Order: sequence, then C-alpha cells, then structure tokens
Amino acid sequence: MSFRKFESDAEVIAFARQNSPIFSSEARLHVDEIGDGNINFVYRVADGAGNSLIIKQALPYVRIIGESWPLSQDRIRIEAEALRMAGEHCADLVPQVYHFDAALCAIVMEDIGSHDNLRHALIARRRLPLLAEHLGRFLADTLFFSSDLYLDAHRKKALVKSFINPDLCKISEDLFFVDPYCDHERNAINAPLRADAEALWNDDLLKLEVAKLKAKFLNQAEALLHGDLHSGSVFANETGTKVIDPEFAYFGPIGFDVGSILGNYLLNFAGQANLPGDASERRDYQQWLLDGMATLWQTFESRFRQHMAEQTNDPSLQLPQYADWYLGQLLADSLGYAGTELIRRTIGLAHVADMESITDPAQRAESERLALQLGRTLIVEREQLADMEAVIQRVKALAG
Amino acid sequence: MSFRKFESDAEVIAFARQNSPIFSSEARLHVDEIGDGNINFVYRVADGAGNSLIIKQALPYVRIIGESWPLSQDRIRIEAEALRMAGEHCADLVPQVYHFDAALCAIVMEDIGSHDNLRHALIARRRLPLLAEHLGRFLADTLFFSSDLYLDAHRKKALVKSFINPDLCKISEDLFFVDPYCDHERNAINAPLRADAEALWNDDLLKLEVAKLKAKFLNQAEALLHGDLHSGSVFANETGTKVIDPEFAYFGPIGFDVGSILGNYLLNFAGQANLPGDASERRDYQQWLLDGMATLWQTFESRFRQHMAEQTNDPSLQLPQYADWYLGQLLADSLGYAGTELIRRTIGLAHVADMESITDPAQRAESERLALQLGRTLIVEREQLADMEAVIQRVKALAG
Repeated sequence: MSFRKFESDAEVIAFARQNSPIFSSEARLHVDEIGDGNINFVYRVADGAGNSLIIKQALPYVRIIGESWPLSQDRIRIEAEALRMAGEHCADLVPQVYHFDAALCAIVMEDIGSHDNLRHALIARRRLPLLAEHLGRFLADTLFFSSDLYLDAHRKKALVKSFINPDLCKISEDLFFVDPYCDHERNAINAPLRADAEALWNDDLLKLEVAKLKAKFLNQAEALLHGDLHSGSVFANETGTKVIDPEFAYFGPIGFDVGSILGNYLLNFAGQANLPGDASERRDYQQWLLDGMATLWQTFESRFRQHMAEQTNDPSLQLPQYADWYLGQLLADSLGYAGTELIRRTIGLAHVADMESITDPAQRAESERLALQLGRTLIVEREQLADMEAVIQRVKALAG
Repeated sequence: MSFRKFESDAEVIAFARQNSPIFSSEARLHVDEIGDGNINFVYRVADGAGNSLIIKQALPYVRIIGESWPLSQDRIRIEAEALRMAGEHCADLVPQVYHFDAALCAIVMEDIGSHDNLRHALIARRRLPLLAEHLGRFLADTLFFSSDLYLDAHRKKALVKSFINPDLCKISEDLFFVDPYCDHERNAINAPLRADAEALWNDDLLKLEVAKLKAKFLNQAEALLHGDLHSGSVFANETGTKVIDPEFAYFGPIGFDVGSILGNYLLNFAGQANLPGDASERRDYQQWLLDGMATLWQTFESRFRQHMAEQTNDPSLQLPQYADWYLGQLLADSLGYAGTELIRRTIGLAHVADMESITDPAQRAESERLALQLGRTLIVEREQLADMEAVIQRVKALAG
C-alpha cells in the first residue's frame, strides 16, 4: 500500500470534520502540526472556541533517515485498538478515539492539550496529587481485563493474534535486553561512567537475570501491554492523567508495563540528586516520588486482587492462594523490568531528560551511577524484596 | 466454506495419484478407510506392491455427535504445517507430508503402517531399543528450533500467529487443568477411587500448583508444541519411531510436550502393577520404563544444551549459566505437566488402555491410586526434584 500524506491544511480540516462529532458545522477550523514528525505526523485541529482534536498519522519509515528505514504502519492500527480497549475500562485515563482510518493510517482522537508531559512535570518537581493512583488504576484495569484471568479463551487468543507487533517489539528487545549489556555501537555512555558500564558488561549474575526477563518479555503473552509506558507517554495535571501512544502494545508480561513506569519514577529520583535547585527541595521531592511508587503499587495491587476475586470466572484460577502467589510474581517481575528501564536509559541508546538536564558530566555520572545501582539491585534482588516498603527502604539505603 | 467429503474410492485414488510421487502410473490402487472417522476420515491407498500412503481429511464437526458440535478445520492446516516443520529437523521421526489441500482439508502423507501404536506396544511390554532416544531427539529438535533460542524475532512471531489454535487448546485447557480438580460431569471415575478423587478436589496445595501450570500453558509461547504427545500419538518398532497427529500444535511451554510423554511412561508404569501377566516380568518392564525415562530426558537435555551452545545467536541468551537455569526450569515444568497428564487420564474424561485393560475395578483402582500419587508428587515437588535420577528414586519409593 502506498503511503499518502495529507496535502494541505484544508484536507486535514475536512478529515477532522468528517470524523469527529466535536465541531459545529459553521466553526472555522485551523490546523497546527505538532510533534517532531519523525515517525508520525501529529496535527491539532481547533475551532478557536475551545474545541480541538488530534490527528496522528503513522509514517511508513523513519523520516530523518528516509525511506531506507521502513517501519510497519500496522503500529497505528495497534495504537488505535489499544486505546479503544483501554477506553473500555478506564475511559478517563486515555484519549478518546473518534475514528481510525486504515487507508490513511490515521487516528482522530481527543486533544489532551490541557495535560502536561509527565517527564517535564517530574523534572520541574510538580506534585500531581492523583497521578500515582491514576497510574495504578490504569495498570490494574488495562492489564487484568486483557488477561486470561478475565477473558474467554477464544477472545484472548484472537486478541493475542491481532496484537502481534514484531517491528516494535524488536526495538524493545534490543534496546532493553541486548545493547546495554555489551559494548554496542548504539549505546550512548557518559565518559565518566565508562568504567561502570564495562563492569556491568562483565556482571554475569546480572546478565543471567536479564536473560530470564528477556525470555519472559519474548514469550509470556499475559496481558495486552501499553509496551512503552515511560513518563513521556503520560500526560497529567492536578486533576487528570492521560496515557497515550500505545504503539508498542502487544501481549507480554504484566510486570513490563508496571516496571517501566516505576523505573521512570526512579530515573527521576536518581536525577533529582543532581538536578539544579535547592537541595532540601530536591530531597523532599525524592520522598514524594517514593510515596508515589508506594501509592501506585498499592492501588494496582489491591485493585488487581479485587478484580481476581470478583471477575475471574475460570474456576481453576480462583484460589485465594493463587492470587497471593500471582501478585508476588507480578511485584518481582515489575521490579526486574524497572531495573532494565533504569539501566537502558542510562547506558543504552535512548536517554531521558531527567538525567540529560544535568549539564555537568561528572555530576550527571553520579546520578547515572545511582540509576545503574538501583537497576542492578532491583533485577538481582527482585525475588527477595518482599513488598514495596522493602523496595523503598532499599532504594533509600542505596541513595545514601 | 462448505465441507466436501470424497464421494468414492475412485476419487480418493485420483487424489492420491495426483498428489504424491510414490505410485507408478500403471499401478492399480485400492483404498481402505482406517481410523474411527469420528473427527477425521483416514484412508490408506496402496498399490499391492508395497507402496502406500495415507490421506487424512478433517471433518468440520464431531461425527458421532453431528453437525451440532463444530470443530475448526484449521486444525488440519496446523497439523500439516507442524509435520512439515518437524520434518525440517527430524525427518526420520515424522511422516513425510506429500501434499496439503486447503480446500479439501486433507493431508496426503507417508504411510507409517510398519510401526505400531506405542500405547499397545507398552501394554504388551515390548522393549523398543531406540524409542527413548528417538523421543528425546524429537523433543529437543522440534522444540529448540521453534523457540526464541533459535528463531529470528520476526519469524518466531509470525509462527506464533500462524499457530494460534483456540479450539484445540480449549479442549486441553479444560481436560488437563479444570475438570479433574472439581466434581465435573465430564469426569469418569472408577467407583473405588471416588474418595481419592474427592480428597484431590480439596487439595489446595495441589490446585495452587496446577493453576500455575495452567497459567503457563495459556500464556507462555515458548516453542511450537506437538500439543498432544501421549503414547497413542507415537508409532514405533524395533528400528524406528514416528510421531503423528500434531493437530493440537500451538506455541506453548516446552515442558508440556516433554511432560505429556513422560506422563504416559508413568501411566504404563502404574498400569503394569496390575496388568495381566507374570509379576516379575511386569516389575522388570517397570524398570525398563524408568530407564527409558532417564534416557529420554538425558537425550533431550544434552541435545537441547548442545543446540543452545552452538545455535543460539541472540547474545543475551548465550550465557552458560542461563542454559543451566533454563534446563532446570524445563525439568520442573516437564514434571509438573507429567503430573497433570497422570491425574487427568485417571479421573478426567479421557482414560488410557494402560489402565482400562485392568478389568477388575478394585485392582484398577490400585494402579489408578498410584497414578494419582505420582501425579501429585511430580506437581508439588517439581521444583525440588533436582534431576531425573531423583525423580526415578521418588517414583520407586511411591510404587513401594
């Protein structure tokens, strides 16, 4: 299928009018291209009277590289379907999808412009009172209701098939589980951290545990994951939270989603040790982050447990002891994947602004060293850390 | 698609001629319908000069029940593809597929008529010198080469998608993991064994471990399984072994295949305690079965380990410690699934002739009780049993 981009603003506007209910027919609309347009075009269409929507169109290649690096456009269908599925259970936590156009590879969806990118909010040390609870609920609902604990066997398998997402999974497989554990050309390593990275490449105990986590990432079709749940995929303000961009969605291990966002809390935690600003303010904010992790996990855990008690129909999975064991496993998995996120964001290809905003390389290396230590600890001790309180104590001990 | 069965022998013969290379054009062919024709028609076409082949045609419903119980014909495509994939790595251990006809839902394949049904051979206490080694090799090769340890990420995911097999998986899910653990109407329980079955339904420790095994069966797309590897799916003689009927094939946990066949060794072992015949001969044969289990596992384990050392390209899965850990997990999984096979064949819907040939219900109950004990032990102790030698000692201790 040949790719057709929108030729003009008028065409974008006509498409927006035709495929959403939000504009009155007399409204004069205007369009802005937002986003970097590297692998997607993103347009905002607004009427100047407070109504607006977003159109996201997937490119069939990586624009800065050109048509030589193709990228499956099936990801935009997957994103649209994942948003719709999430919307069935937590409509308030994802943008509403007004329309998906398979031929144009375009989603027309709710504008979440009143929310801010969570990564920027965390760097600015904003305290978002509902964030952790919202994220815990998002994870519990999207993951439970797409698992065998809830779905009928045929429906689950049909969904697994529909969300096979090889191009985007391959990116995660390499960036999370391969590159950071060897001297790979894609890695980006802060010079003062080089010795730490080299030590890590020789850490066979760590690499063994990462191999187990990779095997689970490859094989375990436990639930429909968001698949890329870092703080740049979350938009939030004082009253609301929106999770966007599930183009990496596929059926994988639940702990990968939970661990990705926990890892991003800890990346910011490690960054706060050396970000600009008042030291006591930064320490207080670190505590706010740890409290948020506790709230997030507690919300997720209790809600998931309640779903298992009330909504699991398969009699063979209803035993209360099974729920205890299962949630214990989910914690261990989540800690392990949080660890892989910490490590890959520190010495892998894709770094985060929580660290990169520390301009002095030596200071940045301090925060990065803490991130590596936290990551390693969570991975190798994930089966021993009994609960989130123990995790938080361990984090504090390592942060010194 | 409406189902079209062959209308006449002449039509079967024409189809056989057209779709295989084995008959000379002058040969006069004749056809026999073999098999029970309940969910498949199976024909043997022969030329009277030693050449013959098999045509297997999948029915779209269960014939003894009628069109009211539909059964996906996609299973015959899955069977053909699974046989072909197995044939790429162990051509001598599966029938060769000459042709698959999607419209007719029919496979034309090699006749393995010179081999005998393994279940009958075991009941008759035949010692097949190459059997265990062949089965170990079949398992190592089919499972390793369809796993992420060998396949490229895209190929693996395309295969997972192609082998999604919900109708047949659902049968296994219920018969292995649900029915035997509750008072289900599909169960068939020998009257003297009723109290044992009731005790098992109240055994929460066992049910917890079975829930873990079920979750893995549902979720873990580790390798392309045969999916129904009981001794009725194996045909063997003094010199050769053929594994047939992979219509339950899907990507699942490797231990399910290994455990299914080990479970069938142990079902025969338990049956031999009370089958007709000389007692010392039966005891000797029990030892032959245990030796076979040791050979099977040892062949599987060493070959799989060798494949991991020589053929795993993914650097993140190449660590020798990972192979140790991984094969330890495979043993534990295999023992667990062997246990579920023992239990479901004893108190579930589908019993085995290894037991049913014991005509006296009280004597049969003795063997069945042993099978339940073996099954429970393998399931709950699977993580503690360090190697196959420990397993065999445990089996002997329980058999008394």
